[in-house]
Amino acid sequence: MEKHRSEAAGSSEEKARLEKQIRFIVEVDKVKNIFRQTYLADGKRKENDAEHSWHLALMAVLLKEHMKEEADLEKVMIMVLIHDLVEIDAGDTYAYDEKGALTKREREVNAAERIFGLLPEDQGGYFRELWEEFEAYETAEAKFAHLLDNFQPLLLNDASGGKSWQEHGVHRSQPMKRNERIPETSEIIWEKIREIFDRHVEKGTLMED
Amino acid sequence: MEKHRSEAAGSSEEKARLEKQIRFIVEVDKVKNIFRQTYLADGKRKENDAEHSWHLALMAVLLKEHMKEEADLEKVMIMVLIHDLVEIDAGDTYAYDEKGALTKREREVNAAERIFGLLPEDQGGYFRELWEEFEAYETAEAKFAHLLDNFQPLLLNDASGGKSWQEHGVHRSQPMKRNERIPETSEIIWEKIREIFDRHVEKGTLMED
Repeated sequence: MEKHRSEAAGSSEEKARLEKQIRFIVEVDKVKNIFRQTYLADGKRKENDAEHSWHLALMAVLLKEHMKEEADLEKVMIMVLIHDLVEIDAGDTYAYDEKGALTKREREVNAAERIFGLLPEDQGGYFRELWEEFEAYETAEAKFAHLLDNFQPLLLNDASGGKSWQEHGVHRSQPMKRNERIPETSEIIWEKIREIFDRHVEKGTLMED
Repeated sequence: MEKHRSEAAGSSEEKARLEKQIRFIVEVDKVKNIFRQTYLADGKRKENDAEHSWHLALMAVLLKEHMKEEADLEKVMIMVLIHDLVEIDAGDTYAYDEKGALTKREREVNAAERIFGLLPEDQGGYFRELWEEFEAYETAEAKFAHLLDNFQPLLLNDASGGKSWQEHGVHRSQPMKRNERIPETSEIIWEKIREIFDRHVEKGTLMED
């Protein structure tokens, strides 16, 4: 990211930037109230987008070594930290909600305009680009971020005994479809994912098609 | 951090590393249930350590430009993502809890041993070092991380009308003392912090000494 260190600390330009940054920082606090369909590992409540994003950024540090393509860790971390901010306005669309999926893009683009628009132009533009890069799912960083975004709820769902799959009556083909691009990103994680599916189909918490 | 890309994806060494990483990833989910004394900006509930850490990592990206010393952003982000994990075992010690402060270090060191010990040795050692570096509060990265750790709850507390200060009957000298090293890290943030204190003393939500 471009750096804008103003010449004198406390210049009016720097103060104006700080005020915009603070407005954004307080605004995005709302993402702590956007709840997902995934339960925490202990199964006691659902997790929210801020917790989810924290988990992904930490996982990025640990799982980088398993990716086929070299990814820029800092960029991946920033990408996952901001990837769900659009849900402040657009809400969380459940992975297997086909109706919600139809309007998701439009709702999210409007949200991106408003939320990233609170920041100084260079920083807002950078976050917007990162979010679009995530959505496009083409670069090594976007692939890694998507892997994290898919793998984390699987691990929590596994830890909570498949609670979320049971509640929604999910069939194996649904998460298989959702994870279809994982093999091109990491073979060993893909292997682990299939192992989790197999175990839950056997237990009956994930339905066979 | 040292990189350990094993030669063949799916080697038994790589699988063993992944199993340890997954155990850690699921274990640290517990930090989502460690609640702090700070209220969310909307004042409706207190925030937890995962949400707090997510917020700090994102703020690091935005506020780096205001720091006097050049800090390595990736390192700061990882530092803040993990800085509160020890509270899974040690609990949250409120900033102005003098009794709790006496046993804090011992409780947290034991927690660090156990929690970072779940990871492959190189990764656990790296996190342990980063946590110690944060605690030592000497490097540019540790100073930046402490600034974020102090500034974020101030912004939330300000947004929620000083709710947490009122509940605890906090006097101005307490957060002044807690923030005494901020001026050496960023003048403009220190100016903003004093402005918040002044405003709350005037409103009566922070008590004059």
